[in-house]
Amino acid sequence: MDLTSYANVVAKKVEDFIYNNLKGYPQKLYEASLHYIRAGGKRLRPLVVVLSSRIGGGSEEIAIPGAAAVEVLHTFTLVHDDIIDKDEFRRGVPTVHKLWGVEMGIIAGDLLFAYAYKCLLKALEYSVPSERVAKALEALTEAAITVAEGQALDMLLPEMENADIEDYIDMVSKKTAALFAYSAKIGGILAGAEERLVSNLFNAMMNAGIAFQIRDDILGLVGDEKTLGKPVYSDLREGKRTILVIYSLKNLDEGKKAKVLSVLGNRKADIDSLKEVAQIIRESGAIEYADSLSEMYASRALEIVKSIDSNDREALEMFKEVIGFMIKRNY
Amino acid sequence: MDLTSYANVVAKKVEDFIYNNLKGYPQKLYEASLHYIRAGGKRLRPLVVVLSSRIGGGSEEIAIPGAAAVEVLHTFTLVHDDIIDKDEFRRGVPTVHKLWGVEMGIIAGDLLFAYAYKCLLKALEYSVPSERVAKALEALTEAAITVAEGQALDMLLPEMENADIEDYIDMVSKKTAALFAYSAKIGGILAGAEERLVSNLFNAMMNAGIAFQIRDDILGLVGDEKTLGKPVYSDLREGKRTILVIYSLKNLDEGKKAKVLSVLGNRKADIDSLKEVAQIIRESGAIEYADSLSEMYASRALEIVKSIDSNDREALEMFKEVIGFMIKRNY
Repeated sequence: MDLTSYANVVAKKVEDFIYNNLKGYPQKLYEASLHYIRAGGKRLRPLVVVLSSRIGGGSEEIAIPGAAAVEVLHTFTLVHDDIIDKDEFRRGVPTVHKLWGVEMGIIAGDLLFAYAYKCLLKALEYSVPSERVAKALEALTEAAITVAEGQALDMLLPEMENADIEDYIDMVSKKTAALFAYSAKIGGILAGAEERLVSNLFNAMMNAGIAFQIRDDILGLVGDEKTLGKPVYSDLREGKRTILVIYSLKNLDEGKKAKVLSVLGNRKADIDSLKEVAQIIRESGAIEYADSLSEMYASRALEIVKSIDSNDREALEMFKEVIGFMIKRNY
Repeated sequence: MDLTSYANVVAKKVEDFIYNNLKGYPQKLYEASLHYIRAGGKRLRPLVVVLSSRIGGGSEEIAIPGAAAVEVLHTFTLVHDDIIDKDEFRRGVPTVHKLWGVEMGIIAGDLLFAYAYKCLLKALEYSVPSERVAKALEALTEAAITVAEGQALDMLLPEMENADIEDYIDMVSKKTAALFAYSAKIGGILAGAEERLVSNLFNAMMNAGIAFQIRDDILGLVGDEKTLGKPVYSDLREGKRTILVIYSLKNLDEGKKAKVLSVLGNRKADIDSLKEVAQIIRESGAIEYADSLSEMYASRALEIVKSIDSNDREALEMFKEVIGFMIKRNY
C-alpha cells in the first residue's frame, strides 16, 4: 500500500477509536474538546506510533490505543497553546477559546489530557502485557512533561537577553520534536521491540521533528494564509523567537535590529511594517541559515533510519517516507 | 498514634516525595508549579490514600506514590480553577496566575497534571505489580476526567435556567467528592484489596466529600477572611451556584430573588450589597437546608464505614476520624 492510502487507513481507525472513547457530559465540554479533531489534521503522530509498532514486530491493531493517545495529547497542547498565544484560527476554523471562551478552553484541554491516558490504557484490552502498557505510560508522561517545559521555554525566550541558537534548538526539541520522538517510542514499546531499536526510532524522529519545526518557522514567514490555516505573520505579531528572528537579531546592524524589535510582539503592527520586517529578516540571510540547519537535522534523521532493520520492510519504507515528508521543503 | 501526628508523618513523606520528583527546567515553570504545595495544605487526600492502603492490607510505603499523585493532581486543579474563577488568593498567598501570569499558570497546571502520573508510576519501583499500577492509573484517569466534567458543570450551572439541587449534587460529587473517592480507591488498589472493600472505601469518601463541599459552601457565606484564606463573599462575587444560592433562588419571593441575582456574579458589587444579599440568603432558610442535606450525606458515609472491617484497626479508626473531620461543622 502506498503511504497516502495507508495514512488514511490509520487516520480513520484512530479517529473511530477517539470518537468511540471520548464521550460524556456536559456536552459543551465534549464539543469543545473534539473541535480540533473534527477539523481535520494529518494524524502524523499516530502514523508514527503505528509504523514504529510494526517495525518493532508488533501489529497495527495493538498500536491504535497509543496512536489515539498521542493524537489526543497533541490536541490538548494545541488547545492550551492557542489560549496562550491568543491565536484565533487553527486548521481554518476559529480556535476553541474563541468559540467557547478561555475558561472552557482550559477545561477542554485538561479533559483531553486525561483522555490521552484513557486511550493508552485501553491497550490493556488489546492483550498488551501490563508491563509494556506501564512503560508506554511512562513514555507518554515524559512526553507531556517535556512538551510543557518546551511551551514554557517558548514563552520565556523573548525575555532572555541573548537567546541563542542552542536555546532555540532546546526549545523546539521539547515543544515540537519530543512528541514525534515519544510517538515512535510508544509504538516500539507496545510492540515489545528491543531497546536499541526503540532508541533509534526515537532519535530519528527527534531529529526529523527539529527539522520539521525549523521548516515550519520558515513557512511562517514566507507562506500564505491558505497554506498556514491562519493569518500571515502571526509569529511576528506574537513575538515568537523563531529561528529566523533569533538569527537575524544576532546578525543585523543596530538600526535594522531596532526596526525588527519595534514590530516583534506588537499585535497592532500594520501589514506594511510586518512586510518590511519580513523583508529585513529575509535579507539577513536567516532563511538560508535556517534551511541549512534544518538540512543538518534532516540528514541526521535519515542516517539513523538507514541503520534500522526490520522484518516489516513495508513499514520501514513508510517510516522513511514519513520522515521524508516531515523534512521536505514546504516553502 | 493519634490522627494529627499520623497526618503529619504522612504529609512529610508525601512532601518529600513530591519535592524529590518535581524537578526540572525552566526554573520559573517549576517555581510556579510548586507554589501551592509550598504554601501548605492539609494533605487530606494523600492521607486517605495511605489509610485506604493500610485498611486493604497494604503498607504505608507502597501508597506514597499514589498519595503524592492525588495531591499533585489536586494542586493542578487548583491552579487552573483559580485562573477560571479569577481568584487572587489561595491558602493566604497570591494565586499562581497573579504571580506568574495566566499563560504560565496554564502551563504550570499542565506540568502538575503530567507529574501526577509520574508520581503514581513510581509505584512500580516500590515493587507494586504492574497490573495493580495500571489499575491505579485507570482510577487516576477517571478521577481527572470526572473533575474536569465537574469543573465544566460548575461553570455552566449559572447558565442553566432552573439549576436544581440534583444538578448541584451531580456537580459537587464530580468536582470535589470524586477526588476523595478515587484517593480511597487508589489506596485500595495499590494494596491489592478486594473489590468489595475498595468500593466501600470509595463510596464512603464520595458521600463524605459531598458533605464536605456543602459545609464549605456554608462556610463561604458565614466564614471570615482568615478562616477562608481569601476574601469573604468570593462565591457571591464569582456568581457560584452554591447550594445556598440554588436553594434561595428557588424559595425567595420575586423581589428578593431579583436582589440576589443583581449582586450574584457582579465582581464590582460593594460590600454593603454583598452583606445584604448574604442576609437574604440566610433568612431564606438556605443554611438550615444545606446543613440537613450535608448531615444526610455525612451519615451515609458513616454508615458505609461501619460495614468495613480490617486487620489494621488503627488505620480503620483513623479513616473514620478523617471522615469525622471532613463532615464536622466548621461554621
